[in-house]
Parts: sequence; C-alpha cells; structure tokens
Amino acid sequence: MSAQEITVPAPADFHVHLRQGPMSQLVTPHVAEGGISLAYVMPNLVPPITSAQQAAGYLQSLRNLAPQTKFIGTLYLSSALTPAEIAEAAKEGVRGVKSYPRGVTTNSDSGIEDYETYYPIFEEMQKHDMVLNLHGEVPSNADAGICVLNAEEKFLTHLFKIHKRFPKLKIVLEHATTRKAVEAVKECGETVGCTITPHHLELIVDDWAGKPLNFCKPVAKYPDDRQALRDVIREGHPRFFLGSDSAPHPLANKYPSAVTHGAPGTKASASGGDDLEPTGVVSCGCAAGVYTSSILVPLCATLLEGFGALDQLANYVSLNGRRFYGYDDEQELSQGSIKLRRAGGGSSAATVPAVYVHPEFRDVPDSDASKVQVVPFWAGKRLGWEIVRS
Amino acid sequence: MSAQEITVPAPADFHVHLRQGPMSQLVTPHVAEGGISLAYVMPNLVPPITSAQQAAGYLQSLRNLAPQTKFIGTLYLSSALTPAEIAEAAKEGVRGVKSYPRGVTTNSDSGIEDYETYYPIFEEMQKHDMVLNLHGEVPSNADAGICVLNAEEKFLTHLFKIHKRFPKLKIVLEHATTRKAVEAVKECGETVGCTITPHHLELIVDDWAGKPLNFCKPVAKYPDDRQALRDVIREGHPRFFLGSDSAPHPLANKYPSAVTHGAPGTKASASGGDDLEPTGVVSCGCAAGVYTSSILVPLCATLLEGFGALDQLANYVSLNGRRFYGYDDEQELSQGSIKLRRAGGGSSAATVPAVYVHPEFRDVPDSDASKVQVVPFWAGKRLGWEIVRS
Repeated sequence: MSAQEITVPAPADFHVHLRQGPMSQLVTPHVAEGGISLAYVMPNLVPPITSAQQAAGYLQSLRNLAPQTKFIGTLYLSSALTPAEIAEAAKEGVRGVKSYPRGVTTNSDSGIEDYETYYPIFEEMQKHDMVLNLHGEVPSNADAGICVLNAEEKFLTHLFKIHKRFPKLKIVLEHATTRKAVEAVKECGETVGCTITPHHLELIVDDWAGKPLNFCKPVAKYPDDRQALRDVIREGHPRFFLGSDSAPHPLANKYPSAVTHGAPGTKASASGGDDLEPTGVVSCGCAAGVYTSSILVPLCATLLEGFGALDQLANYVSLNGRRFYGYDDEQELSQGSIKLRRAGGGSSAATVPAVYVHPEFRDVPDSDASKVQVVPFWAGKRLGWEIVRS
Repeated sequence: MSAQEITVPAPADFHVHLRQGPMSQLVTPHVAEGGISLAYVMPNLVPPITSAQQAAGYLQSLRNLAPQTKFIGTLYLSSALTPAEIAEAAKEGVRGVKSYPRGVTTNSDSGIEDYETYYPIFEEMQKHDMVLNLHGEVPSNADAGICVLNAEEKFLTHLFKIHKRFPKLKIVLEHATTRKAVEAVKECGETVGCTITPHHLELIVDDWAGKPLNFCKPVAKYPDDRQALRDVIREGHPRFFLGSDSAPHPLANKYPSAVTHGAPGTKASASGGDDLEPTGVVSCGCAAGVYTSSILVPLCATLLEGFGALDQLANYVSLNGRRFYGYDDEQELSQGSIKLRRAGGGSSAATVPAVYVHPEFRDVPDSDASKVQVVPFWAGKRLGWEIVRS
C-alpha cells in the first residue's frame, strides 16, 4: 500500500519571481501557501536589481508581505555591477548573481552577451561564496541556426568555460530543459548545480504549442528531454533540485487581445517586414512564464509520483538544493517541515484554483489589461497531494 | 536595376481552406483578390466532405461566391469512402483525396491511422488520375518520442511506402516544413509533388512561440529547415509549388479568453491530470492556422525576393503546380495572368489590413466568439509588391 502521508523537511524554492507592487502583494504570500519556507528570489524587476541597497530594500518589502518566509536575494549581472558592489551585497545577505542572456526572457533587455568581461565580478563572488545563476540560453539567431529549441544546448559551452576558469565558484544552471543540459551538469564538478522546474517535468513542446498558459522560457522540449529531467530526479542526483521559476504574469499579458481598433503605438505581430504603419493589431505576443508558487510542493509530489519518484520528493524540493547552497541546518530543516496527505476524492482543497485575483482588482473587468490576476499551472485540475495545515 | 513590374501566368493555390457559412462568404472572394485563379479546396468541413454529392454541392456554393475563380474539389479520406464513390466523385470534377492523420489539425478527428486499408481506394484513384494529398504528420505520442517537432519526419516512411506500392498514383506531400521532407520528396519519382506555404518560407519556431497568429500545423521548425524550403524554391525544382494552406479562424479562436468565470462545460487547459471539476478556465488552446488568401501572390513575391528567388515566382505560384496537376493549358495560363508592380512608399494598397470582418458582424463586439473576423498573416505590415488591378 502506498503512503498516505509524507513529511518533507523545509522545502526550498531556489528560483522564484516575486515581482513588485500589487503583483508582489498577490504572489509573495503564495510561497508559504505552496509549502516553501526558503525562497531564492530573482532580480529581474523594472528596473533590475543591480545594487546591494536595492536588494536590501526589495528583500525587506518581501519580508513585510510574508514574515514567515526566508527570502534570499540576488543581483542582476550587467555592466553596472562592480566587485565593490558584490562585497557590499554579500554583507546585505545577497547570495547570488543572475545572468540573463540579452533579450531571451522577461525583463532581460539588460542581459549579458559575453562572460569574460565579468571575470572580475566572478572572482569577487568566489571570495564571498556567492552563486552564479545562469539562465542558460543564447539569444536566437536564425542566420547561425539558433532558435528557442537549441538555445540551451548552444549555451553549454559557456557553462563549461566559466566552470573551468572558476572551478570553486558555485554555479547553478537554471531551469534545465534538455538531456544535453542534464549531461553537461553531471560532467561538471561538485560546484555546479542545476534547477529543474516542475512544469518542465510535465510539459513537452506540444503542450505549449498554441497554449499560452504553458508557454515559458526556456520552452519545453522533446519527450526525450523530459525523460532525462525525470530520470535525473528519480535517480536522486544530489546536484539537481527544485527551482520553480514560478513567474506570474497578468492574465491580459498571457492572452493579449489581438485587435485594438486603432490604438496608437500598437504594432503588428508577425515576424519579418517593417512595422511602418500600426493599424490596430497589437503585438499579440503572449508573456512567457508558468505560475506554480501557490501549489508548489503538492504539485511536485503529484508529478514525482506520476513518474515513480515520490521517494525523491525530499531530495528534490529540499535537501539537494539546501545542501548545495548550505542552508541545510538541522534546526531550519525541522522548523520548516511540512506534512502532505493524499488528496481525497471529495477534497476541494486539492483542486487548483482557476485564477488568483488581487483583492483590490476584483471589480475590474477581465478585459482591463491592468487587472492583477494570475492563472496558475494546472488551473482547475486535481492534485494528488495536499498540505496538512495546522 | 531590379524589375518594377512582373507578369505572372494564372497563379494557382493547390491547398486552401474556404470553410462554410459566413466564414466562407468572407474568405472565398479573397482568393481572387490575392491573385489566384485556380483554388484546390480542402474537404475538412463539419462534417467532412466524403461523397461526390457533397463535394458537388460545396463546389457550387463556392462558385456562387466567386464566379471568376476555378475551384477544384477534394474528398476526405476515411472509412466512409468507397471505390465506387471515388469513380462518382471523379465524374463530378473532384480531383483529389485528402488524408489527415487523426487529430493532428483542425477538424481531423475522422482522420486515418493506417494506410493499407485504403489501398483499394488508391487503386481506384489511380484509374481516374486522382491525386492523394497527404497531411504528412503522424499523431504525437510522447511515449514513442513523437511530438509536433518530429511528426513530419516520422511520417515520411508512409510516403515512401505508398509511393512504392502505387508508383503511378499522383501524391502530394502537403505543406512541407522540414529539410528531411524536402529530401524525401526529391528522392521520390515524378508522381510525387510537394506544396510549400509562404508562411513556412518565413517563420521558424521562435515566431509562433507565444504568438498565436503565427501558430499553425505543421508548426514551423528550425532555421535550417526553413533554409531547405527556401533553397528548393530558389532552385526551381519542378515538383515543389504553392499550396498556401490559408486557414481562416475567427479571431476569438486564435485568442480565446482564458477565464470565463464559471461558464458550464469549460475545461482546464494544462496537460496531464484529469479535468474533473471545471472551474471556469476555458480550454485556452489557440486554433492552428495562418490566413494568407487575400494577399497571397504579393506576399509570395515579397518573400521570394527576400531570399533571392523572385525569378522563380511564376514557377512557384503557378507553373510547377499546374504542370504537376495538368492544369497548364496555355489559354488558361494566359487568361488568368496577373501583373504585379513594386509597391511605392506611399501606397496604402500594399499594407496588409489589420483584420477582415464579415459585413454582417461589423457591429458585433470583439469579445463575442461568434464574430466572423480574421486577422491575416503580416497584419499591418508592408508588402513589397501589389497587384495591378485593371
């Protein structure tokens, strides 16, 4: 008989987007609701977090919204960053620096193009035991044969190069989506870890083709790639762990209206050609991101059970990541531990909500693009596990 | 100095969807507007066209809407089809039989799963010089490693097998999207042709990732695949020709609303799990299809010029296809010929409209899913060429 209850030591999410303003108010408390006690928070705000002072202020704003959650901060790697600022940030409790290749995902216009210019930063990070968090995709370039499907694979040379030059620098390849990425991380030494999102354990390319809610960057790839992600979790490899990349977007940005009947400044959507005369068709691009914070640990349990890896739940959602980062203090593990129970047939608690709406926006019409509302992954579906709330 | 005017002999579109009802009323006249005089029309209606009588009625309805256009009919390959019906259909001017693998595209639920059972049909088709039009994708099957990215490649064994068994049967691999498909058709004998859509000459996977207007089946693939399509048109290979696969969908189906706040019978969108309790999130799948009929020949001229193949325009949009099918009568070629001129800087005629709305639906709100309106490919963008209207 399979287990009906599981205790999980202090789950940690080593890659989460908690945004700013009303969206942050909506989603930051969801981290604890999803069973997570430690959240490693991404810096791609508007403007991005590039200084110790900004980071400190942002972390405080998150603590104000969710005092029970431990938030770990990161800086955005860009030419604005200096070794002195790294030292300063380390003092403020910032633990990592996130690198975004330019233009590949949400708010990455300030992203980096070449790593060698950042070697002095990496030197300083190494001194302070800071972690380099890599969004592992190179920008698409059709002339060079690079598109969203092979952008991760093409990035791996950068990973190897940085790791070779800084073998003691902790590096995390974020949200791996391919067999090649998994193999690359395994080939590296003990200082290289890898986050895997729950949605990439579930989705393949078919699932986001024409389905904006499942569209995220990096895009989900082939069935064989998903198999590699599942296998590395099932085998319990200690350097692979949960980073949800939970990324809330207002529903209106996931499902933009296609026609605005002449709104000024709008742009046509198709690729190629020039946007010389805006004619009322909006850009029609759906924002990339999947939202999982509010259901995170039950979702992970459900997915892992689905491919025979439920026994690896604690390693995936807590121990592997905490050990890699060094947040595996016994007391902390015990204090944040949660209990899951198998969801009963009639339990509404195990049904994923259709949508989360910020209370102040409840009366705003859905057609209003400013409405702060987020549709979670698996909206309306049943989870196999639920958190036992005390 | 490059040409300022081009005469194109009677352009023909060997793969077009003209729908039924108000949508057909909207788009059928667009065939001539796009410069096309012969339209080879797909049978995936609701219900699909499976009899000679249905086909005859449908062709008459199209002729009523656009008397100047020559329409060629097709039947939908399914277990309902008999050799006797093939003979009957040939008498009614039906020229082809379209095969859809089950479930891979719009209205393909009646599609086929195995070809051997249809060999008696193919025998009869061969007798009447009818053409087998293949939607060349196998259904996705993650357990077998098959997804939308390799579904075409995996189909090619079926093409080879049918061609070997029926070497005299004319076969068209429709809307090829991959280098492997191009190579496969080249390897086959003179009876195997291949349509290539203009949008697949332009798009790669990045262009439909999160962009519903560019999402179609088969999905656009890698840059190298697009290169192979461009190359085979540029080299003027006689068995590759225009089939637009122009496929109008109501805008509301390209951009479905994500939240319906509890409408009955709606389903959650994400993959996996069970849809046990609909909670107001609609299925959120964006309809697959790109609409190009209204701008077809100018679009082809613009794209071909973009990759140095303008000198192949007549072969691509007219001669190759007409010769393959045998509609290359000199008089017909001359009567349907059109003249294109380079679009001037100030010409509004060369700007693709933002949207086409059926006149009877002009006052219907955009949020109404029944509104018959279609956003074309390249909406709001400039075309390099325009048709000289007499």
